[in-house]
Amino acid sequence: MAVLTAQHDDFPRWYQDVLTKAKLAENGPARGTMVIRPNGYAIWERMQDELDRRIKAAGARNAYFPLLMPMSFFEREAEHVEGFSPELAVVTHGGGKELTEPLAIRPTSETVIGEYMAKWVDSYRDLPLLLNQWANVVRWETRPRIFLRTTEFLWQEGHTAHAGEDDARAYARRILHDVYQDFMRNVLAVPVIIGGKTVRERFAGAVNTMTCEGIMRDGKALQMGTSHELGQRFSRAFNISYLAADGTRKLCWTTSWGSSTRMLGGLIMCHGDDFGLVLPPAVAPVQAAVVAVKETDGSVTRAAATLTDELAALGVRAQADDDVEQGFGWRATDWDLQGVPIRVEIGPRDLAQNTAVVYRRDTREKTAVAVASVADTVHGLTSRMQEEMLNAATARRDAFITDCTTLDDVRDVARTGFARVPWATVGVSGEERLAVDGLTVRCLQAADGTLPDGDDDAGAIAYVARAY
Amino acid sequence: MAVLTAQHDDFPRWYQDVLTKAKLAENGPARGTMVIRPNGYAIWERMQDELDRRIKAAGARNAYFPLLMPMSFFEREAEHVEGFSPELAVVTHGGGKELTEPLAIRPTSETVIGEYMAKWVDSYRDLPLLLNQWANVVRWETRPRIFLRTTEFLWQEGHTAHAGEDDARAYARRILHDVYQDFMRNVLAVPVIIGGKTVRERFAGAVNTMTCEGIMRDGKALQMGTSHELGQRFSRAFNISYLAADGTRKLCWTTSWGSSTRMLGGLIMCHGDDFGLVLPPAVAPVQAAVVAVKETDGSVTRAAATLTDELAALGVRAQADDDVEQGFGWRATDWDLQGVPIRVEIGPRDLAQNTAVVYRRDTREKTAVAVASVADTVHGLTSRMQEEMLNAATARRDAFITDCTTLDDVRDVARTGFARVPWATVGVSGEERLAVDGLTVRCLQAADGTLPDGDDDAGAIAYVARAY
Repeated sequence: MAVLTAQHDDFPRWYQDVLTKAKLAENGPARGTMVIRPNGYAIWERMQDELDRRIKAAGARNAYFPLLMPMSFFEREAEHVEGFSPELAVVTHGGGKELTEPLAIRPTSETVIGEYMAKWVDSYRDLPLLLNQWANVVRWETRPRIFLRTTEFLWQEGHTAHAGEDDARAYARRILHDVYQDFMRNVLAVPVIIGGKTVRERFAGAVNTMTCEGIMRDGKALQMGTSHELGQRFSRAFNISYLAADGTRKLCWTTSWGSSTRMLGGLIMCHGDDFGLVLPPAVAPVQAAVVAVKETDGSVTRAAATLTDELAALGVRAQADDDVEQGFGWRATDWDLQGVPIRVEIGPRDLAQNTAVVYRRDTREKTAVAVASVADTVHGLTSRMQEEMLNAATARRDAFITDCTTLDDVRDVARTGFARVPWATVGVSGEERLAVDGLTVRCLQAADGTLPDGDDDAGAIAYVARAY
Repeated sequence: MAVLTAQHDDFPRWYQDVLTKAKLAENGPARGTMVIRPNGYAIWERMQDELDRRIKAAGARNAYFPLLMPMSFFEREAEHVEGFSPELAVVTHGGGKELTEPLAIRPTSETVIGEYMAKWVDSYRDLPLLLNQWANVVRWETRPRIFLRTTEFLWQEGHTAHAGEDDARAYARRILHDVYQDFMRNVLAVPVIIGGKTVRERFAGAVNTMTCEGIMRDGKALQMGTSHELGQRFSRAFNISYLAADGTRKLCWTTSWGSSTRMLGGLIMCHGDDFGLVLPPAVAPVQAAVVAVKETDGSVTRAAATLTDELAALGVRAQADDDVEQGFGWRATDWDLQGVPIRVEIGPRDLAQNTAVVYRRDTREKTAVAVASVADTVHGLTSRMQEEMLNAATARRDAFITDCTTLDDVRDVARTGFARVPWATVGVSGEERLAVDGLTVRCLQAADGTLPDGDDDAGAIAYVARAY
């Protein structure tokens, strides 16, 4: 009896089933909002922890800017207001009165942060100014889907100001590589494709948007994090300027970059299977569940507690499950659903032979291990499994990618996977035609697979797919 | 030349000066909102870390509920809606359209969380349900002051459901003692007075509100955290019920509890002096600054780097300051302003004698210490200073408290400090008369200093003061 809809029967339904059955999240009372339940939020906390460490290592400091800002702020940068106006939530009443100027709930914070950067930056000595904030944002969604597109979501948004274009560009790339790509590959085990966005797909107000694109198990793309060069657009709009060493006043160059709870959706859809979520050990709140089988004399429960302590001593996030009033099968199914990477199962018969069963969630393999070796075995497995999950995801990703030479090929391939094609073959007009069929250029790469130098790189390669 | 307004000249101005000069926070663009700058936010992150650990130790799990909720949610619990309606911010437009039902920005989340508790609680096996969330909330403020009263603030709010009244009451008290009081005393070094609120001062919708009251250096009170028993009011309004072991359906008993960025204001005003902020080591993002004096051959900078590494190896959060292009005096003033607990000063002359100067921020004492002993000395000082700051704050607190026997005495004493008086002497009518002069009963204690059993404890003692 399957707990979930099978992926190959109905992938979106499978996704919704996992959210519900693993108690990760559900819809909020207002349309498009979500409730992140403790099982889901614990994963988000692990993500925040790992990302925050990388953001700080890149020199950025956390701050907090207001949720509400005057509508006039958006109007200062033309492309930005055009891009975000249709998505704004507007507060018109506060404290029982109608407001004289309506306030917008931030959909992103370039404008309000720009206002303060202008106050804080005086001379070249104040640069670069590297800020990040963890916050909620609101963007009105017409077709909401939990984690992937919600009216309110949680994210981090970095905002930096630099003295020169080169420094801004280098920093935006550093964030893409050292923060996002590193986190996604090595923590989430999602082998993202990185590249530049086409002009059509850029962030509203950016001169260059770089992206991390994940490939889900249904062959669709998920944009999982973006880093933008904003040129001098926001500096000009908010007058973020500095006194240079030569005594002249110059405009700064700014960047912004963000990643959100959407990554939870990517994690689920990149690794999940018909038994539920499958978490890479690095991001799993519980890495190993030590599950005791029902017994009569308490010896199994004691052995499970000892094993849990041994695992914790090795730095493994372990949890004992001695809830023996619930059937063993029911509990095993539930640990599977929740995607806990490793399960140690121990019962009276195992204990009599001085063994336990070690189960890994990704391959569903079971191995009998001497009790004395369980902790070391599980500890070793956490890093091996992390690596093997990345390898398996990379193999799945590569199997979804097909080289194409014509737009017709692209359209055919991108229905179920990723088409890789010379950008010259697609071009701006081809991109528009693909859009009619719901296909988008996910990113452009230089011929050698690195980031393209600009949007007019003649030898660039395009990745085309359907996207969430 | 004083950097700040002196506390005794103008305490509110001193507070504002500290916020600005130490770059902690400033006003946001929309009235009543604030921007928390990196120096301020780093302290908040330390607070979150320490509080979150205690909240998890008390068994609660983090989750996240929506910012926006239908207005109708508030209307279900009569006292709650009456209390919060005047403070609501209301979204009337979203995605370019007028909404059919306006949405409120959460001022607190009892109602939306109540709605989900009702869905998640089925039988007694699901209880207690212990939830917490870290979030921003909005309450319209007519007299905003940064950290103390802002239209938007950051906080944690805990929400729990229990099978019985005793369990709910015990948990609300556990949070007050083991989470809030423990955190405030042992991390913030603020010796809060704990007690029960009078009916007049209760949270809107609570049957009992317990509070942690700090005494600031100007003798005023600051409510720093509260824990509420909500009885069955929200359970009734949202139908949070469970199937009991005896097969009957029963209503739950719920609690809620919160603490916010307001604690940053309390920290500043409890310990700060005329030189700036003074941070207890446990909450200081940087516990020791190792400040190099300008030199010619790089030996001082190298020695400072070595000392910083040695401190870090002992678990001290240390930061080297080798920005010798800035004058030493200017840097020392700035470290004072930021309240960094310990400063290690090292220059060519010190190094020639193989010594460094260890400075503690609270007493402003300087001691010459052999370079080889600096790390151990500073490490030892972090715990000693933590304890001594609590002792000093306790002495200041106690000096502000005066026992009174008449309402006239109370009125006189509470102008500049705390009046302690039998509750029977004040009573509901006395409380109303004191309110005319801006004086409030901060809390009630039983005669032995513990929490009172209820609001009709005949022998209760009242603490009366002005409050932020």
